[in-house]
Amino acid sequence: MLYLEDLKVGDRFSSASHRMDAEEIRQFATQFDPQPFHLDEKAAQHSLFGALVASGWHTAAVAMRLMVDGGLPIAGGIIGTGADLRWRLPVRAGDEIHVVCEIIEITPSRSKSDRGSVRIRSATINQRDESVTTAEMQVIVFRRGP
Amino acid sequence: MLYLEDLKVGDRFSSASHRMDAEEIRQFATQFDPQPFHLDEKAAQHSLFGALVASGWHTAAVAMRLMVDGGLPIAGGIIGTGADLRWRLPVRAGDEIHVVCEIIEITPSRSKSDRGSVRIRSATINQRDESVTTAEMQVIVFRRGP
Repeated sequence: MLYLEDLKVGDRFSSASHRMDAEEIRQFATQFDPQPFHLDEKAAQHSLFGALVASGWHTAAVAMRLMVDGGLPIAGGIIGTGADLRWRLPVRAGDEIHVVCEIIEITPSRSKSDRGSVRIRSATINQRDESVTTAEMQVIVFRRGP
Repeated sequence: MLYLEDLKVGDRFSSASHRMDAEEIRQFATQFDPQPFHLDEKAAQHSLFGALVASGWHTAAVAMRLMVDGGLPIAGGIIGTGADLRWRLPVRAGDEIHVVCEIIEITPSRSKSDRGSVRIRSATINQRDESVTTAEMQVIVFRRGP
């Protein structure tokens, strides 16, 4: 696991992958985003998407899981203060996604000497190598203790 | 439910509220963000947060649910193309949150006459009237049919 002093701009990381199945898409949507195109295949066929698609928040949550499970190996955890997300392509049932991250900026804290803020550009990529979601995240990263 | 021609810059909407309980925080985290400060009260006491806190993605997903359930009454559903999130304060077990939205920009599509893109500023607010998360979202909104 990596501390602030281990990171440099340009470092890249890649996660394992996860298959989004229809049942999982419906389950998340039932709880958090109950719109027809996330819940029901037939209704989705008559929607903008033409097929059942995952909630964008579901895709974002799965990306977080992939990062926590080793896709972004930051010591002490992934503590985000912000994320700018772009949902570029729908994620359909059966799609298999993984996350790639690149460190784009490292800013040591001026007030707290034990940490810094790191800007990360990420892409969630499907089995056709298309970026379905891109993001820039700001995370807190700690220094190795004295 | 509102169509593109019903919206104007400055329109504001407010959602119902939702109480975040500890079990729900742990459940979401188990599935999507299994970090100690989201899973276990004791571990969380020794973390940056000092108490069990909801995953930021959980807070975002609950905010989406509150908007879908009437907090943002857009005809045809809430279809986001992007969201810039800032997690400003932790959400703790027992906190009660609601979402307020304001229309800040309306851009008719140049290529597709049936729709436009609407920029919305939102805040997720706790029972102490603090903004725990703020966001700017870009959503697709359809015109009323001919």
